[in-house]
Amino acid sequence: MTDIHTIKSYDDELDQLRAILSEMAGLAEMQLANAVTALMARDIKLAEKVIASDKKIDFLEQRAEEKAIEVIARRAPLADDLRELVATIKISNALERIGDYSKNIAKRTTVLVNTLPIRQISVLPEMAQEAQRMITDVLDAFIQRDSTRAVNVWARDERIDLLYDSLFRELLTYMMEKPQIITACTHLLFIAKNIERAGDQATNIAEIAYYVIEGRPMKDARPKRDDTAFARASKDEQPHPDQQDSAS
Amino acid sequence: MTDIHTIKSYDDELDQLRAILSEMAGLAEMQLANAVTALMARDIKLAEKVIASDKKIDFLEQRAEEKAIEVIARRAPLADDLRELVATIKISNALERIGDYSKNIAKRTTVLVNTLPIRQISVLPEMAQEAQRMITDVLDAFIQRDSTRAVNVWARDERIDLLYDSLFRELLTYMMEKPQIITACTHLLFIAKNIERAGDQATNIAEIAYYVIEGRPMKDARPKRDDTAFARASKDEQPHPDQQDSAS
Repeated sequence: MTDIHTIKSYDDELDQLRAILSEMAGLAEMQLANAVTALMARDIKLAEKVIASDKKIDFLEQRAEEKAIEVIARRAPLADDLRELVATIKISNALERIGDYSKNIAKRTTVLVNTLPIRQISVLPEMAQEAQRMITDVLDAFIQRDSTRAVNVWARDERIDLLYDSLFRELLTYMMEKPQIITACTHLLFIAKNIERAGDQATNIAEIAYYVIEGRPMKDARPKRDDTAFARASKDEQPHPDQQDSAS
Repeated sequence: MTDIHTIKSYDDELDQLRAILSEMAGLAEMQLANAVTALMARDIKLAEKVIASDKKIDFLEQRAEEKAIEVIARRAPLADDLRELVATIKISNALERIGDYSKNIAKRTTVLVNTLPIRQISVLPEMAQEAQRMITDVLDAFIQRDSTRAVNVWARDERIDLLYDSLFRELLTYMMEKPQIITACTHLLFIAKNIERAGDQATNIAEIAYYVIEGRPMKDARPKRDDTAFARASKDEQPHPDQQDSAS
């Protein structure tokens, strides 16, 4: 009886932790959507709301970490369960950083709002929507222990990277043609970079999830990327582990 | 006897973990120094060496995490020790990311090497040197349990932020005056951003160290920053926890 009770309430604790992660992922997705909507609509009130709401994600990250440490200390779990709990801490950290990127987009929006070369950024919502879907899907993959779905999310990041690359080149062209919009365009570059980094965090989570589910690194399972584009150094401040030779 | 033996070898294990972190910090500092030297000297061989050497830091991060999980699983430490072990995982993750930034600088250098407006970037080595010192000092603070030193490192990040801000404005001016160097300047912007983010990671580590040493968040102890510069949205893709209302 005691054993069953112990096992059940350990599962309950894991469920609580997963619920915090789900809530964080939902908030991270919403914050990114709102940040980009605020930018496109030049809605400074919404941008300020995004800035203020980031605190919630920070708070949840702290709660996830405290809860995970408490469970580890009390339960002394074996290595596999321990790995899952440590993964929880790492995933909550990644989600918190996605929140930071959205906040940064919102801050740049409050600066940009009157100078925005609006026609030039239609690709940003497309990038953001893909990143949002990746955040939701990768957390489902972790919670449902679906490693195939984790690999699938990982692979989709390439689309964001390609959109970022083409936007980067486009913005350079605009800046050369119209020096008076250079300041606005550099903010847009950093905004695009933030979305691209949100996608990178989703792939990070995909790799963490895969490792926990399968007990081995994802590099053996995932599709090969094109590693030849060495000149694409405008990306990868957050390169994916095991992707060290790609300069994409 | 057994207890003393157990305690001693637990300390040995913590020492091993600290040694891995020290090695990582040494490598991270060297990689940043080499990346910026390669950029300034247009030394493509050195840049390629930096790119290749990033693997070492990645490897050490994995080792630190595995070792920490192994120690937790075997020793079932109490909450305080557990917090320190989890802090070790987080610090190794932060150092690995500093390694990524250096690699990214090196990749951009391989692209920039023939088009570099070299006179414009003398502030970059200054930023990098400050970041390097912060990395060394913050790890010493963690290992020697010196919370005053951790606060001191945290405060020094402001200097890097100010250097970044002035460089950002300077590069904008150059781009407006000379459209043909816009591409090179945007790479320099991202390079400066990477150095600034390395400084942010050092402040992250300072906060993690402070929490482990003092058992409470650093926000109560550290000097106040100026939170009024709301327009400085060009920074903080990685804002410091508890600094949520600053847009610097």
